[in-house]
Amino acid sequence: MPQGVPPNALSASGEQVPLFSHGGQVKAVMQYFAGAEQPFVDLSTGISPFAYPLVLPERGALHHLPEEGEEQALQQAAASAYGVAAPDMVVSGAGSQSLIALLPRLLKVQKACVLGPTYSGHRLAWEHNAVPCEGATHVHQLSLAAQQGGVACVVCNPNNPDGRLLERQTLLALADQCARAQSWLVVDEAFGDFESQSMAPLLPHPALVVLRSFGKTYGLPGVRLGFLLACAPLAQRARDLLGAWPVGALALAAGQQALVDTQWLEQAAHKARMAHDRLVGMLHKAGLACRGQSTLFTLVDVAQAYALWVHLCQHGIVTRRFAEQPHCLRIGLPADEAEWTRLACALAAWQAGHSAA
Amino acid sequence: MPQGVPPNALSASGEQVPLFSHGGQVKAVMQYFAGAEQPFVDLSTGISPFAYPLVLPERGALHHLPEEGEEQALQQAAASAYGVAAPDMVVSGAGSQSLIALLPRLLKVQKACVLGPTYSGHRLAWEHNAVPCEGATHVHQLSLAAQQGGVACVVCNPNNPDGRLLERQTLLALADQCARAQSWLVVDEAFGDFESQSMAPLLPHPALVVLRSFGKTYGLPGVRLGFLLACAPLAQRARDLLGAWPVGALALAAGQQALVDTQWLEQAAHKARMAHDRLVGMLHKAGLACRGQSTLFTLVDVAQAYALWVHLCQHGIVTRRFAEQPHCLRIGLPADEAEWTRLACALAAWQAGHSAA
Repeated sequence: MPQGVPPNALSASGEQVPLFSHGGQVKAVMQYFAGAEQPFVDLSTGISPFAYPLVLPERGALHHLPEEGEEQALQQAAASAYGVAAPDMVVSGAGSQSLIALLPRLLKVQKACVLGPTYSGHRLAWEHNAVPCEGATHVHQLSLAAQQGGVACVVCNPNNPDGRLLERQTLLALADQCARAQSWLVVDEAFGDFESQSMAPLLPHPALVVLRSFGKTYGLPGVRLGFLLACAPLAQRARDLLGAWPVGALALAAGQQALVDTQWLEQAAHKARMAHDRLVGMLHKAGLACRGQSTLFTLVDVAQAYALWVHLCQHGIVTRRFAEQPHCLRIGLPADEAEWTRLACALAAWQAGHSAA
Repeated sequence: MPQGVPPNALSASGEQVPLFSHGGQVKAVMQYFAGAEQPFVDLSTGISPFAYPLVLPERGALHHLPEEGEEQALQQAAASAYGVAAPDMVVSGAGSQSLIALLPRLLKVQKACVLGPTYSGHRLAWEHNAVPCEGATHVHQLSLAAQQGGVACVVCNPNNPDGRLLERQTLLALADQCARAQSWLVVDEAFGDFESQSMAPLLPHPALVVLRSFGKTYGLPGVRLGFLLACAPLAQRARDLLGAWPVGALALAAGQQALVDTQWLEQAAHKARMAHDRLVGMLHKAGLACRGQSTLFTLVDVAQAYALWVHLCQHGIVTRRFAEQPHCLRIGLPADEAEWTRLACALAAWQAGHSAA
């Protein structure tokens, strides 16, 4: 049991702490580090630390079912935010994960091909629905798979966790190939709001599905809100499959407030980019190599990834490790100066103990 | 366009106002009744007017992803509230509709058989997933269908909209039949919290799935929270299909507060039963016959159902009509004395114009 784990069991010599399947499981992780400094700093996700200053709805908004008009207003706000021509190409869901889970029912395909390593939720969604799912490591492999026909190609852009960012032209060529072969291209832009390669403005496209996440960009993952963007008939089918009232009063309010606030988004993007550069600089200074072009996190390549993860946990900082990539840690953006200071101290201590001989 | 509809087009001679697919679409309906008294009284749903006095979570709860432990605590609270032996038999979803939508993927069956007329979401879920769905009007027909094997029998208990309440023994016999024939019995107890025939305590059962709704009982449908209850392996499969974080911070807080507050539930049930009796009495007094044993609404049989619906709308009261049952209106419980008074006046005016000759 976590409480019983002696501190010396947490040395870097083995992996006594289990690997959690998602970031953000801070309380669960920190049960193994009873003496660590609190409050814990959660850098284990790619969620923006700059949360939108949401005005919570009146409690009375919870007392009735969302009206169709409210959901349509949310779709309109999302269409405007994502550069989609019409709100009937927008599907609202309780988090983009709920829309990933919908894909195997929405796209009637023989198999899926996922560009990886990436967010595990994609592979799991196809497997849980008994659709064969293979991995690809290069976009060329997706292209070959697409040509077989009846294949759902899945690309996270920018990718999580390595921050690989593909250009819009590359993905458009792949989407066109998919269209010719009756395959589909799903571009998961969960981390795309701060980048410039979004595919959403290319909709409607006969073979393209785009996913967007509200919680990551607006720092409000507890709201559970995400969007699927596609040509209108497919979007209607997705809404049919979800059924009525897929999102609640809080998500309706949050989306309608935040998605149209372009000024806030610009400022948040600026702050996030500054924080990203500061983070990468701090990690470099500690002798750690970073990868990726996703603003909201960076991926550190480090042979002793588990040891660094434990070290940071011992300093009250939770980062994210991966089963498939045991020599990497994903690190999100600190929220304030206290968190930056904690990270700087922890990294200095790490470097002191692990400086290149 | 609604705004352009002249008042005299709203006479009872035809059906100029479209039939909305769900209750609760008050703003959409009342666009057709520009002069009606406000604020509108929504009796178009079966949602309790006695809302749980939810303490909203701190805004900070929205800034991070729900932790697994929080979802497990919610499952524990639901297991306790519904009399289910273990929390691993509980699946949380963003409204019970999201779990109805999951059934065709969860239960691998050749067809569904739905005891009706009932909530349209059941039939739609199977049809949207290309599973043939037939209707039954008596439990005996379900029994015959179940024996074919590979059939999902669906019963809403109490039923919506007619309030028909089947006894637990009847449904248990059907569930046992389903188990022998490798069929399934889904009992949707969305309106079951105030009744005494719940199947949930009979779980685990090899062929039984129970659905519960949080929003109706606790008057908080805007939260979007519902539960699927089933034997642990099936519940795990349902969680796998939903993917991570199916419910957000608000639902986690609401569920954990309200589901364990048995004293509040007792008081709410008492108030709802009193209101139900008062409603039925008031309708009887107006010469209207009522049906059903569901506490949260009653079904009025009236030849001139559309005319009564229009009449009530003109008095600022929205009730629910049905395509399949054109001579019925479902009427929910008024929330306070102002709403009771409005209803009493509207019914008196109706009776004055339509008293039996």
